[in-house]
Amino acid sequence: MSDLYDIAIIGTGPGGLEAAITAKIRNKNILVLGSPESSLKVQKAHEIGNYLGLPAISGEQMQKTFLDHAKSMGVEITDDRAVAVYDFGDYFAIQTRDGNYNASSIILATGVVAAKPYPGEERLLGRGVSYCATCDAPLYRDKTAIVIASSPSEEAEADFMSEYAAKVYYIPLYKEEAHVREGIEVLRVKPVEIVGENKVEKLVTDQDEITADGVFILREAVAPGQLVPGLETDGPHVKVNLDMSTSLPGVFACGDIAGLPYQYIKAAGQGNTAALSAVNYLAAKERLKNQQG
Amino acid sequence: MSDLYDIAIIGTGPGGLEAAITAKIRNKNILVLGSPESSLKVQKAHEIGNYLGLPAISGEQMQKTFLDHAKSMGVEITDDRAVAVYDFGDYFAIQTRDGNYNASSIILATGVVAAKPYPGEERLLGRGVSYCATCDAPLYRDKTAIVIASSPSEEAEADFMSEYAAKVYYIPLYKEEAHVREGIEVLRVKPVEIVGENKVEKLVTDQDEITADGVFILREAVAPGQLVPGLETDGPHVKVNLDMSTSLPGVFACGDIAGLPYQYIKAAGQGNTAALSAVNYLAAKERLKNQQG
Repeated sequence: MSDLYDIAIIGTGPGGLEAAITAKIRNKNILVLGSPESSLKVQKAHEIGNYLGLPAISGEQMQKTFLDHAKSMGVEITDDRAVAVYDFGDYFAIQTRDGNYNASSIILATGVVAAKPYPGEERLLGRGVSYCATCDAPLYRDKTAIVIASSPSEEAEADFMSEYAAKVYYIPLYKEEAHVREGIEVLRVKPVEIVGENKVEKLVTDQDEITADGVFILREAVAPGQLVPGLETDGPHVKVNLDMSTSLPGVFACGDIAGLPYQYIKAAGQGNTAALSAVNYLAAKERLKNQQG
Repeated sequence: MSDLYDIAIIGTGPGGLEAAITAKIRNKNILVLGSPESSLKVQKAHEIGNYLGLPAISGEQMQKTFLDHAKSMGVEITDDRAVAVYDFGDYFAIQTRDGNYNASSIILATGVVAAKPYPGEERLLGRGVSYCATCDAPLYRDKTAIVIASSPSEEAEADFMSEYAAKVYYIPLYKEEAHVREGIEVLRVKPVEIVGENKVEKLVTDQDEITADGVFILREAVAPGQLVPGLETDGPHVKVNLDMSTSLPGVFACGDIAGLPYQYIKAAGQGNTAALSAVNYLAAKERLKNQQG
């Protein structure tokens, strides 16, 4: 087995970064997966008035302050995206876009998925619908694939896709101009429904239909129930207890994914609690192991 | 009835101050009761490493930063101590050392009482044991009273007591020299037990016994069950839900009083949630009132 981290923190918004610095203080060996630029939501916030200690701060300044703090504590961010987390009883395996990692405990801090799944998306997941181009691109050799992207950071995924697929359509859901490789067809349309009986057959948009073998939906965050199979959820949220534990022992959650209100200071506070609860979980596990000799 | 505040926030540590700024942003009419110097615990902290956004900050600097932020948002602190909160169904009455206030909702952010009650303390509460010299001093005219004080800020209470009582003993539990009025007898002893059948008869200390009619125990915080009669507690903590509501509708709690971990960022995060839950509670109450015409 590859390296086993004490705690894998998924997400680098205020909840994930606070969890990371608290876990660092407690000398845990951590993996922090997510964007090295922290939360896009924080970055784009105009002004935040109620993060105690940082009066009237811009989102951009807050983002920088948080990242600087984390860096000063030796927190390193692995620029990767978790696609799935599997519970192997004694440890968790985290499948990411670029590889696989193992950890004894998990802190989910991915934020919430703003968008509802498209009709057909959940039914056809794994049957042509995928959340990870890097993982599944090789399956689409000489086929047709559609990449639906929520931010410019997905452009590299579409480029990679085009190395395998015969045809790639790229649907940017953002305003900025899309910069993708020649040969990739950029469509400014709104996806409406994914259609197919046993596997993806086509994508219906607000303008027409596109026949395809695969639809890659690349969002900022994956819905928690899809990310961690077996996890109890409540709508877009993970069900948590006061100590930020979830229905799965060893899995904790914090921030927007753990429910309302969507507030930065609340996310950070929960990140702190999640980290300390993970530390307690690891200590209890260690004690049990020693007792069993 | 005197002025009715929307929200009374009891306590001025990180939880209380964050609740105050969030309630201010939501345009609520708030009363903030507590020390204008915020939390003594924060002030005395050496260095705090894991309050996201304020790296490696001293307790004193954090205290100043928090107070400045609150002040910049127009938060005013009423330098007074809540002694009891009574639920009158439609509103709450807050009895303080210096007066009485009314509010539609309550946020408890008083921290935790480190010390356990003295043997006899709870049984004799209201029968010679009191937490408020200012409130009850007139009852001890020409009698003997003992003032047990956890900090120098209680010295004025003892002085006031001496204007009524024939004899005042002052037991400072702090290291600093005690500055009380002439005639007050300062005793450097450790209280052990409060004795009396139906009312206070004497205080047993580690050195001898002191006969007295009243024992005033002046701590930084009153135990939550004593502060708010009827509130469900769990040891030194108030039982809270994820939205920081308690067993009493309209009463919310945050920070150390709401349970472990005792961490500043967690307290602030919960203060934010408590304020927004109080705002929701007030809105629901308003809707109900309008429906009932």
